[in-house]
Amino acid sequence: MPNNKVDIYKKEGQLMVKCENYKTAIKGQEADEYPLIPTIDKKNSYQVKTEDLRQALAQVVFAVSTSESRIELSGVLFHFQPERLVLAATDSYRLAEKDVKLKSGQGEEKKIIVPAKTVQELLRIISSVRAEEMTEEEREVRIFVTENQVMFSVDGIELISRLIEGQYPEYKQIIPQQSETVCYLERVELIRAVKAASIFSKSGINDINLDFPAGKNLVVITSASSQAGENVVELAAEMKGKDNGIVLNYKYLLDGLNNIDSERIKLETINCNTPCILRPEKASDYLYIIMPIKQ
Amino acid sequence: MPNNKVDIYKKEGQLMVKCENYKTAIKGQEADEYPLIPTIDKKNSYQVKTEDLRQALAQVVFAVSTSESRIELSGVLFHFQPERLVLAATDSYRLAEKDVKLKSGQGEEKKIIVPAKTVQELLRIISSVRAEEMTEEEREVRIFVTENQVMFSVDGIELISRLIEGQYPEYKQIIPQQSETVCYLERVELIRAVKAASIFSKSGINDINLDFPAGKNLVVITSASSQAGENVVELAAEMKGKDNGIVLNYKYLLDGLNNIDSERIKLETINCNTPCILRPEKASDYLYIIMPIKQ
Repeated sequence: MPNNKVDIYKKEGQLMVKCENYKTAIKGQEADEYPLIPTIDKKNSYQVKTEDLRQALAQVVFAVSTSESRIELSGVLFHFQPERLVLAATDSYRLAEKDVKLKSGQGEEKKIIVPAKTVQELLRIISSVRAEEMTEEEREVRIFVTENQVMFSVDGIELISRLIEGQYPEYKQIIPQQSETVCYLERVELIRAVKAASIFSKSGINDINLDFPAGKNLVVITSASSQAGENVVELAAEMKGKDNGIVLNYKYLLDGLNNIDSERIKLETINCNTPCILRPEKASDYLYIIMPIKQ
Repeated sequence: MPNNKVDIYKKEGQLMVKCENYKTAIKGQEADEYPLIPTIDKKNSYQVKTEDLRQALAQVVFAVSTSESRIELSGVLFHFQPERLVLAATDSYRLAEKDVKLKSGQGEEKKIIVPAKTVQELLRIISSVRAEEMTEEEREVRIFVTENQVMFSVDGIELISRLIEGQYPEYKQIIPQQSETVCYLERVELIRAVKAASIFSKSGINDINLDFPAGKNLVVITSASSQAGENVVELAAEMKGKDNGIVLNYKYLLDGLNNIDSERIKLETINCNTPCILRPEKASDYLYIIMPIKQ
């Protein structure tokens, strides 16, 4: 439209817009027909620092299942506990879990599954909020939970979503409690080596081999395809424990490496049939588990 | 790979690449199995200024048909004539035609159909060539034509393509020779008005109405959809001839307007069932024809 005065008014259920030589009539609907905004009972409420929540959600939401066969895996688990909130997401091939400190623990212990779409929308809202212009209290997201709905309130914006019904899997039991081999690696170097190996992995399988020779302080990453050829990278690492080897889907591995915010990572394995764990070298509030590809 | 010396050598049909801790073996094929590059008989050759050809091809190639039902419309017609080259493309709903001066007319008169993909590849090559670093002679594309192949030679790069077989339609006969209404419009203002109207056109039909009231020096652009509403823009224009009106697909209209390199455009119509013509206000080397939507 021209850069000039715009007249806007209502006429017979239409929104009239006039500006110089432009005339537009936009069909409307009666205000009564607008869907009711559900009211949320503010009994169970939790507070989290906005930046903590943003980072935590981004670190888990990518692992949500996109398949429709198990609806409870298509959301992020929010497990509210005294003084902390545990977030988890899995598609049954890999799992990401993050611990966040609650600013107040006034709500009771509770587990809810929030649809991935809602989480992505919340991330968009949080990213658009300007933290530097806020008071300390405004830099918090308040979360209200009812039987089947959740409301996120941040900087005056309220996002209400239904919850996913169903039981989230008891994933804690698949997290290995001890490991046979532990290795520390430079994250950026590992990402580079995995990307180089990925070129020679089998398409559709995306398999790359990680070998941990005992007492050698290196990890050997190999891949081979009958069409393209093969690739070997020896990466310096700090190694503890037994001789070991594992085959992983390089895409899942890269997803995890890209979401760990640490210079060095800790990789733990038991054997080639058992989930392996990735963590930041020092922090204990994040973990990422990958199921290996069986040979 | 690390920023270090890279060793590359051949071993048993494989290309070996070594760099520090990275070792790669890439499977190869025997050089004998590489497809033969066809040799081109350099009898029919034509020269065009590189920049002229680049601009001309870009101004017509967008109108090529993407349907596979009429193979001869899936390419650009190159009609070599004494001292000039006429390029044309159409998908039978609209047609773009451009005249280019030949630098030398040593070849004979000839019509060829060059696949749209080849034209797009040629445009990429020309765009990557740095005109300012070339001599006058190097700033030319040489075109060699044989029975069923064409070669474009520019700045030492040779692009060889098969031609599309078949008869290009005798499109000249659908170009109206006289018109009932002629109007001159500011191109940018018309684009803006067409975009505003497009919001209210029927989806799938994309229809917008252009009305030319005699003696009023304005064009009225309207669109209406039963769901969204309606839009009217009155655009100042210089008008000659009869009262007239036409319904056009706004996408075809925008394609033409975006490819005319002129501040004002000339629009000619006969009636609502006859193709209308768009040209630059002054230049006579480009035209764009749109079939109207019948009411």
